[in-house]
Amino acid sequence: MSAAGKGFSPHLDIRRGCVDMTHGSGARAMTQLIEELFMKHFDNDLLRQANDQAAFEVERGRMVMSTDAHVVTPLFFPGGDIGSLAVHGTINDVAMSGARPLYLSAAFILEEGFPLAGLERIVISMARAAASAGVPVVTGDTKVVEKGKGDGVFIITTGVGMVPEGVDIGGGRARPGDVILVNGTLGDHGVAVMSCRENLSFETTIESDSAALHGLVADMVAAAPGIRCLRDPTRGGLASTLNELARQSRTGMILREDAIPVRPQVAAACELLGVDVLNVANEGKLVCICGPQSAGCLLEVMKAHPLGRDAAIIGEVVKDAAGFVEMRTAFGGSRVVDWPAGEPLPRIC
Amino acid sequence: MSAAGKGFSPHLDIRRGCVDMTHGSGARAMTQLIEELFMKHFDNDLLRQANDQAAFEVERGRMVMSTDAHVVTPLFFPGGDIGSLAVHGTINDVAMSGARPLYLSAAFILEEGFPLAGLERIVISMARAAASAGVPVVTGDTKVVEKGKGDGVFIITTGVGMVPEGVDIGGGRARPGDVILVNGTLGDHGVAVMSCRENLSFETTIESDSAALHGLVADMVAAAPGIRCLRDPTRGGLASTLNELARQSRTGMILREDAIPVRPQVAAACELLGVDVLNVANEGKLVCICGPQSAGCLLEVMKAHPLGRDAAIIGEVVKDAAGFVEMRTAFGGSRVVDWPAGEPLPRIC
Repeated sequence: MSAAGKGFSPHLDIRRGCVDMTHGSGARAMTQLIEELFMKHFDNDLLRQANDQAAFEVERGRMVMSTDAHVVTPLFFPGGDIGSLAVHGTINDVAMSGARPLYLSAAFILEEGFPLAGLERIVISMARAAASAGVPVVTGDTKVVEKGKGDGVFIITTGVGMVPEGVDIGGGRARPGDVILVNGTLGDHGVAVMSCRENLSFETTIESDSAALHGLVADMVAAAPGIRCLRDPTRGGLASTLNELARQSRTGMILREDAIPVRPQVAAACELLGVDVLNVANEGKLVCICGPQSAGCLLEVMKAHPLGRDAAIIGEVVKDAAGFVEMRTAFGGSRVVDWPAGEPLPRIC
Repeated sequence: MSAAGKGFSPHLDIRRGCVDMTHGSGARAMTQLIEELFMKHFDNDLLRQANDQAAFEVERGRMVMSTDAHVVTPLFFPGGDIGSLAVHGTINDVAMSGARPLYLSAAFILEEGFPLAGLERIVISMARAAASAGVPVVTGDTKVVEKGKGDGVFIITTGVGMVPEGVDIGGGRARPGDVILVNGTLGDHGVAVMSCRENLSFETTIESDSAALHGLVADMVAAAPGIRCLRDPTRGGLASTLNELARQSRTGMILREDAIPVRPQVAAACELLGVDVLNVANEGKLVCICGPQSAGCLLEVMKAHPLGRDAAIIGEVVKDAAGFVEMRTAFGGSRVVDWPAGEPLPRIC
């Protein structure tokens, strides 16, 4: 063989090329894909070590680790795509412990035949989201499956972060008298994806709220280190998240319907789609539960952050070992907010 | 609704049930799947916290992080399955830095219609592999995709570990005069999977070598902290791994064909399948490069470990900025060991 043969040329044809099985086989094509696409866009010192693992210094303390597989369909939607979502989703899961996210890993499962141009668009979006959040992708993996054995691109991200001293946030820590807050309007992500999927169009485009919440969380934790619970209401929406927290804490919860922020066009879309906005996924929202003495201060801190402008106190924690979540409706009635059950809303994230 | 309605009954019907879209939708069925299958078998204190992230104490030092998506087909093969493979694969990637692996995360992408009994079998195998390695699965995620948009089960694991003080192992550290070792016979995993796929049968079943190598690595690092490179020759086999290391280190390598341990039935199967054993994936093997003064001691330490009984010195690092890997054949000839290119062997891990 010639020396030129060792030179990894010709280059990937990103404009016209497609993913093929050799891109996942450990062969030269795989190295090419990794170098000319992933390493190029995610570029950072740790990734450039090009070992099968990233190495970095950590301080003594409490670390958190979280993982999320992203299988959203369609891959591109108003306000984001699977790439930015995969970064935001895992950063948020890490941040919901109060931690400062440090590093991400990313694994890609690619379907044979997927256009390299589409993959590049996703990787660029992902790299931008990671850079803007200050949380680099430091290691990764790529696999290719045959056409019809995947769905374009799945992205699995894992994140690690460190919890500041004195912070102890967990789903089982809510207690009667605590206050429930959210950082803004509910249902935007799920409705954006579903509208896209169902080809619905509205007067104004409904955009996903997909965003990295660790900056907001850092402000909140600094202002009120005694925050008891933080969780992002993704799949299953606010209803699932509050039922989970109520169950873990063995408490009940009472919500005030008129206090829950929902964009009018999202409410209208939910009506049209026949779904309850409380069951709809969010990707830039958090639920916070804190003692009553911290609630006012936290609300102010949240409202002062760009991702908390529409923050609101939406209810309170009550004594109820059975863990019911109840909503006082605008008309003075009351209904149980149950886990979503009947109508599944899959592949929303 | 009745109080019984909150009780998550009836239970999962693992014997006759199948994965359906509700298992990934954030609804009650998802919680049921997580609790009655994943939490039950992976059971450990960190997982039981049931937050969207696991929290644990770490010491100050050098941490490594590695991720691997597993898409092997078939899901069950002689010597292992996708569950044990997903544990071993990531533990090994962490260990190849010399680190002690601490924790794993696991994300599952399930295809609608996959039998819950098969999933349970995989999860049990995975839990056993993790328990036997002493590296628990502490956090996870589950997604479901429609029938025809996945392939049964994909498992993505991420691992973190800590590198002992004074250890500095990396792909770019080989230098002329260094010695190349492997811990045993090559090609077992890939041939086991391919034989299964092609319905080949041999007189004796060829089993995957899938194994967690961190115990062996710990012994090696303790004996010779100056080890320069460690890498597991998975996809692309020994050929890819040595070409990667040669390229990163800007050196050449010379192998002695008759020193490379290969089981006779694996060699025969490779002949039958028309593949070069050097291109075939391993899942319980490592390549070690060290200075000549450490080689004898390392070989002894490797041979003393159950996973290194067939360890051998297979070649040496030479000066060659072009990064060629060459093999001296048994007949006194010589050939270039190139990256595998033509024949892809995909979905082997």
